[in-house]
Order: sequence, then C-alpha cells, then structure tokens
Amino acid sequence: MTATTSSADDRSVVIGVDYGTLSGRAVVVRVSDGAELGSAVHEYSHAVLEDVLPATGKRLPHDWALQVPSDYVDVLKDAVPKAIAASGVSPEDVIGIATDFTACTVLPTTADGTPLCELDELRDRPHAYVKLWKHHAAQGQADRINALAHERSEPWIARYGGKLSSEWELAKGLQLLEEDPEVYARMDHWVEAADWIIWQLCGTYVRNTCTAGYKAVYQDGAYPSKEFLAALDERFVDFFEAKVEQPLAPLGARAGGLTEQAAAWTGLPAGIAVAVGNVDAHVTSPAAKAVDPGQMLAVMGTSTCHVMNSDQLGEVPGMCGVVRDGITPGLWGYEAGQSGVGDIFAWFVRSSVPASYAERAAERGLDLHQYLTELASQQAVGEHGLVALDWHSGNRSVLVDHELSGLVLGLTLGTKPEEVYRALLESTAFGTRKIIESFEAAGVPVTELVVAGGLLKNAFLMQMYADVTRRPLSLLGSTQGPALGSSIHAAVAAGAYPDIHAAAAVMGRKEEAAYVPDEERAQAYDALYAEYSRLHDYFGRGENDVMHRLRDIKRKAVR
Amino acid sequence: MTATTSSADDRSVVIGVDYGTLSGRAVVVRVSDGAELGSAVHEYSHAVLEDVLPATGKRLPHDWALQVPSDYVDVLKDAVPKAIAASGVSPEDVIGIATDFTACTVLPTTADGTPLCELDELRDRPHAYVKLWKHHAAQGQADRINALAHERSEPWIARYGGKLSSEWELAKGLQLLEEDPEVYARMDHWVEAADWIIWQLCGTYVRNTCTAGYKAVYQDGAYPSKEFLAALDERFVDFFEAKVEQPLAPLGARAGGLTEQAAAWTGLPAGIAVAVGNVDAHVTSPAAKAVDPGQMLAVMGTSTCHVMNSDQLGEVPGMCGVVRDGITPGLWGYEAGQSGVGDIFAWFVRSSVPASYAERAAERGLDLHQYLTELASQQAVGEHGLVALDWHSGNRSVLVDHELSGLVLGLTLGTKPEEVYRALLESTAFGTRKIIESFEAAGVPVTELVVAGGLLKNAFLMQMYADVTRRPLSLLGSTQGPALGSSIHAAVAAGAYPDIHAAAAVMGRKEEAAYVPDEERAQAYDALYAEYSRLHDYFGRGENDVMHRLRDIKRKAVR
Repeated sequence: MTATTSSADDRSVVIGVDYGTLSGRAVVVRVSDGAELGSAVHEYSHAVLEDVLPATGKRLPHDWALQVPSDYVDVLKDAVPKAIAASGVSPEDVIGIATDFTACTVLPTTADGTPLCELDELRDRPHAYVKLWKHHAAQGQADRINALAHERSEPWIARYGGKLSSEWELAKGLQLLEEDPEVYARMDHWVEAADWIIWQLCGTYVRNTCTAGYKAVYQDGAYPSKEFLAALDERFVDFFEAKVEQPLAPLGARAGGLTEQAAAWTGLPAGIAVAVGNVDAHVTSPAAKAVDPGQMLAVMGTSTCHVMNSDQLGEVPGMCGVVRDGITPGLWGYEAGQSGVGDIFAWFVRSSVPASYAERAAERGLDLHQYLTELASQQAVGEHGLVALDWHSGNRSVLVDHELSGLVLGLTLGTKPEEVYRALLESTAFGTRKIIESFEAAGVPVTELVVAGGLLKNAFLMQMYADVTRRPLSLLGSTQGPALGSSIHAAVAAGAYPDIHAAAAVMGRKEEAAYVPDEERAQAYDALYAEYSRLHDYFGRGENDVMHRLRDIKRKAVR
Repeated sequence: MTATTSSADDRSVVIGVDYGTLSGRAVVVRVSDGAELGSAVHEYSHAVLEDVLPATGKRLPHDWALQVPSDYVDVLKDAVPKAIAASGVSPEDVIGIATDFTACTVLPTTADGTPLCELDELRDRPHAYVKLWKHHAAQGQADRINALAHERSEPWIARYGGKLSSEWELAKGLQLLEEDPEVYARMDHWVEAADWIIWQLCGTYVRNTCTAGYKAVYQDGAYPSKEFLAALDERFVDFFEAKVEQPLAPLGARAGGLTEQAAAWTGLPAGIAVAVGNVDAHVTSPAAKAVDPGQMLAVMGTSTCHVMNSDQLGEVPGMCGVVRDGITPGLWGYEAGQSGVGDIFAWFVRSSVPASYAERAAERGLDLHQYLTELASQQAVGEHGLVALDWHSGNRSVLVDHELSGLVLGLTLGTKPEEVYRALLESTAFGTRKIIESFEAAGVPVTELVVAGGLLKNAFLMQMYADVTRRPLSLLGSTQGPALGSSIHAAVAAGAYPDIHAAAAVMGRKEEAAYVPDEERAQAYDALYAEYSRLHDYFGRGENDVMHRLRDIKRKAVR
C-alpha cells in the first residue's frame, strides 16, 4: 500500500514533533513508507522550573513543576529547520506537521492565546506559568474532587478507575483559583500545551479529543456539571464553560493550515496541514501498529504508560481513563500506567551497587544495567528467593496511590546486587500483569503486548515480560516512536491516508512477536506473582497502611 | 576490695583463654585489680572444615562445619606462653587458668578423652570430628526432637522457649547415631569442647553447669528421659546415660590442678587451679559486672547474644534457654540471641553501597560503616521513611525461625544508602527491644543493658539502643571481654575471691550508663517500632508465610 490521495507523491514528507519533559524532537518522515529521513532535538532553555521563577527569582513551593511556553516555540524555530536540513529533503515536499506533548501540561492564556506568564505584570506569579504534568502541588484539590465525585456518585468517576489525578486540568485549575484568584480571573483559556502549540502553528484553538477526555473529564459529550463545580467552590462554577470549553476535533484531523508566522519560524510552506494535538504515549500507538482492539502498547521508560484501543467499554479499577476516540476515532481508548519502572532500576544502579561491580562492568565494557542483567539472567526463576513491590514512586494504576512505597523481601546475607536488581525487574513485570488482569476482569481483553520506549533494548527484561504476562510481545521498530506517531497523524491530516489505521499500516514499524512466553518459566513466575499479589493487596488495599504512616512520620520528622 | 585469700598477693595473675571460631586468645590478668597485662592470639591451623576433611580430602555435605581438636591444644602451647612473655610477669605468679569456648561445639571421644578423629581408622569419618556450633546439618533431627517434645508435653521444652536448636548436643548426637552408627558405637563420651579443653588441662572430665543446661537439656537435676530418647530412635535410648552424663561442677569451681603435661605445654606451674569450662558469652557477664538480676549483657558482634541473671524463673517464648546456675551459681541464667546484627551491616556495606560513597569515605579517612553512620546520624528519627526486619540470617529468639528473611519497606527513588543502613541498625535495636519485652511479659524484669563486643564502639548505634529500649546502656570496659571473664573465673577457682560476684566487682570493667535514653527520640522510635512489631508478627507468626515459601521456591530453583 502506498499513499492514496493526490496530495501526496513519493517525495512527500511530513514532520512529527515530540514535546518531552526537557526537550522537543522533530523528525522528517516519508509519507509513502514511514522512513525516518532526518531529525533534530532542541533542549528547553528553562528546562523545568522547580525552585525559582527565572524572571524574578521568586521561590516556588515544594512539589511545583512549571515550564516556560516560549521554549516550546523555540523547538519549532530550531529543531524543525535542522531536521529538514538533516533529512536532505526540500521544504516544499513537506505536506503536513503534527505534534505530541506531555500531558496534562496546561497553561492559562488570554483570549488570543498569549500565555499569562508573558504579561509583564504577571511574570512574578507562579500560577501564570505552564503547569508541567509532574506538578504535584494540587493533591489537596484532587482529594476533594475525588471525595465529592464519589459522594455525588458522579457517573464519570468510574471512567477514571475511581480517581482523578492531581496532575489533571480540574485539580490544577482549582489550585489556580484558590491560590491566585486574580490570575484565575485574568485567564480566558485553560489550555493543554498539546493544543496551545497547535494554536501557535495554525492560528486556531481546537481541543483534541484525547486530552479533553483523559485530562479534562469530557465524557459522553459533556464535562462535569456546574453543580459539581459549585460544590467544590462557588467561584469555580463556570470553570468548564468559561475557561475550558472549545470546539473538539478528532485525532488525525486537520486543525488548520500553517500560518505565515509559523512558516517563517519553521521554514515550511505556509498553508500545509497542521494536525490536531496529541499526547506522547497515545500517539505512539499507530507508530507501533498497535491500534487494533486488544493490542496494549506499553511505552516503557522511566515510567510505563499503557494505552490500548478496545471495542468494549469497561470500568477498570484504577485505570487512568477510558475515552471514546481517545487514541483513534471510533474506539474506546484506555490508558493505564506504572509510575516507576526504569527509574527504579536507575535508582538501584545509582544507589545500591558496590564499586567492585562498577569495576567489573567497566572491564567488560558494559554499563551497570547491562552487567547486572547479564548476571541476573544466569539464575533460574525464583533462585534469588526475593519478591519486591515496584512502588518506589507510588502506584499509578490499579491502586492509584502515590503514597505507597517500595519493598524488598527475602533478603539474606547471601543476597547479591544482581538478585535484588532482578527482583526489581520482576516487580515491574508483575505490575504490568496486575494491570492486564484488571482490564480482563473488567471485560476488556488484552491479547498482545507491544513495547516502545528505551527499555525495549533489554532483551532479558522483554522475555521476562512475555513470560510473566503469558502474552506474545512485539516491539516498536523505531527509536522515535512519538515523533513517528505524530508524523502518521500529519499524513492523515494532510489527506495522504484515509485514516490513522490505514496510515499506521504503512508508516508504522513493528517487530511482531519478538518474544513469546515460555510455559515453564511462566509457571515458575506464577509462584512469585502469587506472593507479589498477596503483598500488593496487603500493603496496597488498606490491610496494613504502614507505607502511609511512614510517609506521615517522615513528613513530621523533616519539618 | 582486694584479693582476699592467702593464695594471692599483689603480684598474682591468672590466665583467661577465649576459644573463638577461628582462633584462641590468651590474656594475663592481675588478680588484685583486673588489669590486663598481656595477651596473644593463636589462629587454628585448620580453621573451620566446611568443604573437605584435611586428612583425606573427603567432601563434606552442605551445612557441615567441623573443627580439629589439636588446634585447641595448640592455643595452649602457643598463645599462653606468648601472653606471659608479653605481660612481663613471671610464670611463677600465675595462680590459675580458665577458658571459655564457643558452644555448642561438641566432639566424640574415647574413655580417656582421645578425640575419635585422632584414631587412624576414623580419620576419614566426618562424624569423628568436632562439630562446631555452626554445623547446621542436624535440622531434620532437631525438628523431630521438637515435635516429639511438644507431643509428649516434655516439661523442659518451655525452658528453651519451646524449641531446641539443631546446634545442640541432642540433635547433633542423633545425627551422629543415624548417619554413622559405627562411630557412635565407638564413642565413650560426647563432650562439649568447653569441657574437653579443661580435661586436657587438668586430666579430669567434669561437666560445667552452663553447657549442661543450655546445650544438653539438663534441667531440675535430670536430662531428658529414656522414654523420650527411645521414641526418637531405639538405639538412642541410653544417649545421656552412656555418652553424656558426667559429674557436674559449678562455674568458678576448681576442676583440678594443672597437669605436668599441660604445664609443659604452657610454661605454667603444675598444680595451679584450673577452673571448670565456660561459654564465651556467659563468661563475659562478670567481666562486664553484669551478674545481678535484671542486668542484660548483650554481646554485640556479627550476631548478638543476650545473657542475664534473674531470681525469677519465667518461661520466655523463644528464648534460647533458662538454666539454674547457668551464668553464676544461685541464680537463673537466661540466654537469648539475634542471629544477624553486625553481619547484616557488613552485608549491606559489602553489597549495597556505591563507589561514590567508598570514595568519599576514603577521602575522609573513614571506613564505610563510620561514614554511613555519620551521614545517618544527621537525620531525625523517622526521616528516612523506612522500616526493616532484621532477619537476614533468620530469627533466633522470640520467633526461633531460621527460614525467615530480611525486608526493607518504604523505599522511594530518593532513598539513600545511609538511610537503608540506618533502618537496618534500627531493625536490630527493635529486635533487642522485642526480646526485652518478651522477658518482661514473662515476669523477668530487664533493668539495664550492658553491651560488650565489637559494635560498642559505634556511639550512634549505642545511643539508638538506649533510646529504642528506654534503658540506660552501660559498656564493657575491655576489648577482651570473654578472656577477662575467664580470668575472673580462674581467680575464683584459685581461691582469690569467695565467688564470681565478688571477683567481678573488683576485676570487672564497666562504663556505667554510658548512654541514657532521650525521651523525645524514644517516642519517635516508638512509632517505628510499632510498624516493626506489626510486620514482625505478620511475617513471623504465620499470617503470611511468604518468607518460607520463597525459601522453598529458591531451593527448588537451585536444584
């Protein structure tokens, strides 16, 4: 299959831009076959604001994480032309551009989209800035939102596994209102960065169905009611109506044409298709050809995000959300996640591996992850006598409890670093299995795991995931999944393909069933998983709230 | 107070010899004031036999640990004269010698005390050698012994906290019978090494009340009954009568006079007092002036042994044993223990501390224990948010379960090595508190902790123990506690003091209340101890036997 419409020919390319936490990456992709022809990265000059505001040095409270929106525009000015240059294609061959973003990353703007933090008089106001996804200072608001939703039996709460995150639009917006009502009053729009960057590209503000559903609680054609908002805070009553509501557009749709200004920034032709905004994990699904029901994409990096289409609507306890048209139009898009995966392994390597290991790894020309993996892989399943809980950064899905913490059990005086390392790898595989089982118990089948992200290069880990989940495991065949996924959306928005599924079939990259489960190992892992499950429920479901109490003790001790 | 009898003058000295796991140490001590005048160490040339027999290269099964008795005699020949030389005293001023030994370390001999392993025809028989205390291959026998004791409601089983150890005479003797009945038949005496070495010194075999009670189940004037033995194995019926029974002598008594042969080995005058045998931990009590009821001596090294006199007889769950006259004549001597303490800290430092810490410690001229302790001590109680279980080498007292394992809970991506290290220190302090509480709940008051052993040099750890246990903590004022304790027994045996209490008052060394509990910290530790206790009971008392199951899984995986 090749490009199907007259707007594209064999030379046609699209641009996918992936906005991450610290940088943005532009990739030039050929429409006819998905070949990645060139790429460039631009690091945000302000990175993440966690301590002070750059303009004034004003100190930020604990748990804040802000960004500066002009950094996003700089990616367009810098990375896009460099990617074009690296690809060797002519800008004239570019027929469309699309982006994906971290989420929920959200900012207050004026009616014309000017970020409030760019207004001279608001530069010193933390609440005028972009709140990055990992801004965690609205937990109090989230707790009240969740308690009220259950009290009022709001129908939408089950679509989010019973809990909205403090990271999302509602909690962050309520925090803004309560802590800086003046900035709240000045705000005309509370805009997902995913949509704001599209607004900068095409001059039109359209909301994408993905973040509207996952981050702004848009379900069955409506946002939460005014009654609900008023019960939170009377001043909050028109939050959605006044600040959030905006025409929605489906993923893969054309939001508009590239403006003259954006054309000048990027060096691309004015008027080319600009696709509606999207989210980094979700946009990767078509890049990995994981858009059919039951194909669960796991984007495995420091944390893992699971996204999956289904034709079934189920209420999965602890999922992050289920959104109609949330991944591709016409299907229910599910999202779940593990808050700590690669960062648990990195923590262990950084803090818990002795010098002798570092020396031997260096002698072998391996990094410590490779060396520990090699040693760990020489043991039989269960030989370490350990079981761990992968909650070093809390639990995002199934339990949805950020106050949980990690555990290692079974330690002896003979326990070696590679054994604890392996137990930690296993704990994350068990965490994924727990999520899959929650989906299936809710009537949403999961038939295949498709892995993207930095961890897919660890073959031992991948085989472990296949064994533990007893599912074939396929791999994304690109190191630039989100940008490739965005480029697929750009191609659809440009009319080169009739829909995302068709574009994914040609432009996506999947190594099919790269790992298949081994039944003997799977059975051995079952025994460890049974222990994991029991500890998971004991410590995670309130039977022994020691992890919460230790957090309280810690907070009081530090004070 | 000074020496009270005519047999001692101001120049009089005694020799204490401490037999450890890898070496023996002789110390020359002045009778009038306990001054340590000289010492010397002799390392056993055969160390511990764990893999093969030296004579024939015969392989030993897993969990075996043997020794060679001539190594013990070599200590007399080598370390004693060297210690005399180092002290500068004349051998003529030596009025007595006493020893202490690891226990239960036990060997089979002929009627005249010749170790069976020294008979040519038995050199190749593992069961003819000394079974060191840490020989752990008689667990199956111990399990049967315990089950039978409870089945028959044997009155003595409660004196051992409900469980006899596989390390003791009965289990090791039954293993010998069952696995090598020929060697068993050749054996005339099943002798504690503590008594065998005295036999070599004075030519007389007397059993000491300490090991008879703690290791051979001698209670209320009798060993376990023939009916009990027969129910274990008919061939075992006369085990005590034929192999174990021997005249008993109280601690501090004179077993005999130094033989001409032993005088030749040691360079000491023939005929001087030889005290009855003793055990390393118990003998340390008078050295630390911890012989009054309620003074709990904790000998803290790789493991911790707790010994304490009391005028109360109580049945303490999980204690190692309570023995009349077991520490000093006329009182009930209690023993308890923690199987892993310093070796848990050593394991952590060896396996879990990154190179950067090793570098910074080296720059500071500190070892890693010192450096981690310094960092850990800068935090408030509970600031690490962690709780650990100190069962890396099982649990010896209270739970008496060697299949338990260690746990660390509360880990986050911010957890630092010094925090885990501190949590491990704390877990051992909680383990001691658990033991103290078990004593008090059984009506046996514990009023003071007196610490001996290598760990007393860690001031932060000592303060923690005082805070956690809410008890004043005193320190043994000698680095050679067991040898000093033995020398006190030698002085009593020589008639220089009327009893051990009197000798200890003069010759013992205690830094009184070196640490006193801080109420604020004690309260903060209470909160962590509550969590420790809950996990202790959950994992240790059968509610979740995950640690046992993981051991089973491990055994099967390794197979």
